Amino acid sequence: MRLLASTDFALRVLMRLGADPARHRSTETLAADIGVPRNHLHKIVQDLAEAGLVRTLRGARGGVMLAKSPGEISVGAVVRRLERGQALVECFRPDGGACCLAPDCRLRNVLWRAREAFLAELDATTLAACVAPPRPMPQAVGDDAAP
Amino acid sequence: MRLLASTDFALRVLMRLGADPARHRSTETLAADIGVPRNHLHKIVQDLAEAGLVRTLRGARGGVMLAKSPGEISVGAVVRRLERGQALVECFRPDGGACCLAPDCRLRNVLWRAREAFLAELDATTLAACVAPPRPMPQAVGDDAAP
Repeated sequence: MRLLASTDFALRVLMRLGADPARHRSTETLAADIGVPRNHLHKIVQDLAEAGLVRTLRGARGGVMLAKSPGEISVGAVVRRLERGQALVECFRPDGGACCLAPDCRLRNVLWRAREAFLAELDATTLAACVAPPRPMPQAVGDDAAP
Repeated sequence: MRLLASTDFALRVLMRLGADPARHRSTETLAADIGVPRNHLHKIVQDLAEAGLVRTLRGARGGVMLAKSPGEISVGAVVRRLERGQALVECFRPDGGACCLAPDCRLRNVLWRAREAFLAELDATTLAACVAPPRPMPQAVGDDAAP
């Protein structure tokens, strides 16, 4: 069972932005942090913006930031949105696929319930709950204090 | 969220065999039923045999049949086995992957619980519960009865 690599990366983008939601980050920084090529990141950010999860700021001091507070972002809603084109198995495809077992198959219902159980766990979680609180900055003792 | 195509096909093989567990089927018949090339089916059957789920009978009247009764086959155990090499996201890989959020990420635990919820639904189901009872043959009224 796999999520799309683009969903994995998108979750990392949200986690990065959610760690300091008042701050915007450049796509260059995000791409380097997450380890994806910049054009791949651009597509991910575009998807997240279309989903209303991030907003992009243009210009020299532009970048990306969350469009909502982390407490308003459900991990389940994010995964449902980003994986909306994915069929767990053939018969979950919008066109019904071409499985020899349809339409009398009871396995389909079992797999459907299992997928819902997976998503229900994520629905119950917000980005805020996933983002670790920022670490306190080390307290400087003097100007020459080691970082 | 997707399962491997080979897992999807393997589940169909088990469903087909489970519908009439006393009967063995040739790989040709199964491949045609399920709509996969024969050499692909051969690999799937080999995996299922290694997992102790089916046994293969050699010879002219050979074929494949379940190695256990459908009531003894847990759908969860089948999916866990067939998807054992699959990482839901990067950090589920056996080597830990290369995610920028590790090791402080709380999202990982959420995804882990979600995957377990998915598998728990399948663990609670046997192949017997998924296989629809065979339909009764239409009762012939006379030799000329319409099928």
